[in-house]
Amino acid sequence: MKGSNPRLIGVIGASQCSHDLAEIAQEIGKGIAERGDVLICGGLAGVMEAACRGAKQAGGLTVGILPGAERTSANPYVDLPIVSGLSYARNLIIVQSSDGIIAIGGRYGTLSEIAFACQLDIPLVGISTWEIGVPILRASTPEEALELLYSKM
Amino acid sequence: MKGSNPRLIGVIGASQCSHDLAEIAQEIGKGIAERGDVLICGGLAGVMEAACRGAKQAGGLTVGILPGAERTSANPYVDLPIVSGLSYARNLIIVQSSDGIIAIGGRYGTLSEIAFACQLDIPLVGISTWEIGVPILRASTPEEALELLYSKM
Amino acid sequence: MKGSNPRLIGVIGASQCSHDLAEIAQEIGKGIAERGDVLICGGLAGVMEAACRGAKQAGGLTVGILPGAERTSANPYVDLPIVSGLSYARNLIIVQSSDGIIAIGGRYGTLSEIAFACQLDIPLVGISTWEIGVPILRASTPEEALELLYSKM
Amino acid sequence: MKGSNPRLIGVIGASQCSHDLAEIAQEIGKGIAERGDVLICGGLAGVMEAACRGAKQAGGLTVGILPGAERTSANPYVDLPIVSGLSYARNLIIVQSSDGIIAIGGRYGTLSEIAFACQLDIPLVGISTWEIGVPILRASTPEEALELLYSKM
Repeated sequence: MKGSNPRLIGVIGASQCSHDLAEIAQEIGKGIAERGDVLICGGLAGVMEAACRGAKQAGGLTVGILPGAERTSANPYVDLPIVSGLSYARNLIIVQSSDGIIAIGGRYGTLSEIAFACQLDIPLVGISTWEIGVPILRASTPEEALELLYSKM
Repeated sequence: MKGSNPRLIGVIGASQCSHDLAEIAQEIGKGIAERGDVLICGGLAGVMEAACRGAKQAGGLTVGILPGAERTSANPYVDLPIVSGLSYARNLIIVQSSDGIIAIGGRYGTLSEIAFACQLDIPLVGISTWEIGVPILRASTPEEALELLYSKM
Repeated sequence: MKGSNPRLIGVIGASQCSHDLAEIAQEIGKGIAERGDVLICGGLAGVMEAACRGAKQAGGLTVGILPGAERTSANPYVDLPIVSGLSYARNLIIVQSSDGIIAIGGRYGTLSEIAFACQLDIPLVGISTWEIGVPILRASTPEEALELLYSKM
Repeated sequence: MKGSNPRLIGVIGASQCSHDLAEIAQEIGKGIAERGDVLICGGLAGVMEAACRGAKQAGGLTVGILPGAERTSANPYVDLPIVSGLSYARNLIIVQSSDGIIAIGGRYGTLSEIAFACQLDIPLVGISTWEIGVPILRASTPEEALELLYSKM
């Protein structure tokens, strides 16, 4: 951790994703690490892995809240695998532990996390993610997402 | 329990609701009990209480998966208060335990439950609830919701 | 449910057990049902299944808080399978939802439940179960266990 | 994190403790950090706080799996507060995420964690902690505890 009081920034998205979304996730992970903050995510593949990879490229620290009971499911860029054994109920822990969250694409798991973030009033920025009929902050590039999120925390 | 193999039917919605939604919830609770099935919900007030009241009026059985660590939060029509102490993570248990689910109105907690239901592929019918950009089954009356749900289970 | 205000009585023990412990568990399940109360347990085999079988023989109602994400793991005498998906964290829900608990034999899972019961100050009676160095109520027959437990609730 | 592949070492014990146990916990926290590993604990006061303080004195990294829904309950030496909102069910996450565990004193919460560690077969060393009738590894000094634990991982 570079900073003395790092924040935990959540990155949420699906465990399978397109090349484009993976690139966005990687840039966002990098940006979090460059700001001296810690990345927290679900620890699996797809968006989560790309974000962790980006964070590690920039020398950051990564936390993965795993759904299963085995740490072997963590992607190789997770520094701290937290083994919840709670299946999808771990989604709430990711959200609740975050100072701010960036949602990238995502399927139903991500939708549950967006719901929890809205319920708990945690700053959230979305890129190419769910439209749920109430306005959530949106960005189209990694840098825009990071700037918007940090302006709200 | 009237039936020999009752199903668990989830009713999800907010702990505060309009008079109209409460009437709908009460009719749905009644309809579940009349079909010999068991109502499962979050056990609190609002939509949950109205549904439980309806189920009890028809002689049914009600289960409430409570978020807190005290059963005193259960509405008076909950027969079996299950005390989870898991806060919002209990939303997943309601969904996962249901053979089918009816969503009535609802705020972010309900949205998280709709997300989990879609993820787990559990039959779900909505009345006056979230539009999430993917089609979910919808009904406008209690009877229509029940018929639609039971045709899908 | 026979009674108008049934209690939830927890029966805890291992998913594999001797014939003798199974007989004890079955008698206890029967005794809970005869008192008009509801049996709550972990829903699996062994002590849990024997207790549920006894409760059903006496016309009672049984709740199983399952560790996995599938209700198929429930023993055939569980009326209401609650699908937690929380693995061993579901042990706390069983304990926390009980008005009183009887521990029969048991291995480490049961020890965690005894610990939670002591922590939450929930009446607990043990038969052939853990010695943890602090006194817990003990009985040697099903009837004695039930009488002792009901005198403390 | 000093090492390139740090382990997570759990320290479990009560949120209130004697001066002597706090000194032991602090030394153990220090020893974990000196070995380049990460301390994981429940994040609260007492043994948990003393262990975190020791780890920070040696430049280590600390993770606290908090029971509540607010990070404000974390002791001031927790670097990464993971906000579970699961109450005592978070005990399982601490245990399940640890490569090895040292139990220092402790009350019923600690007993539940010892039970989970035994169930999951995670290396555990106890100092002045529960006697549960089956042999667990025991040490009388911080250094002895650390050496014993590291020899088993």
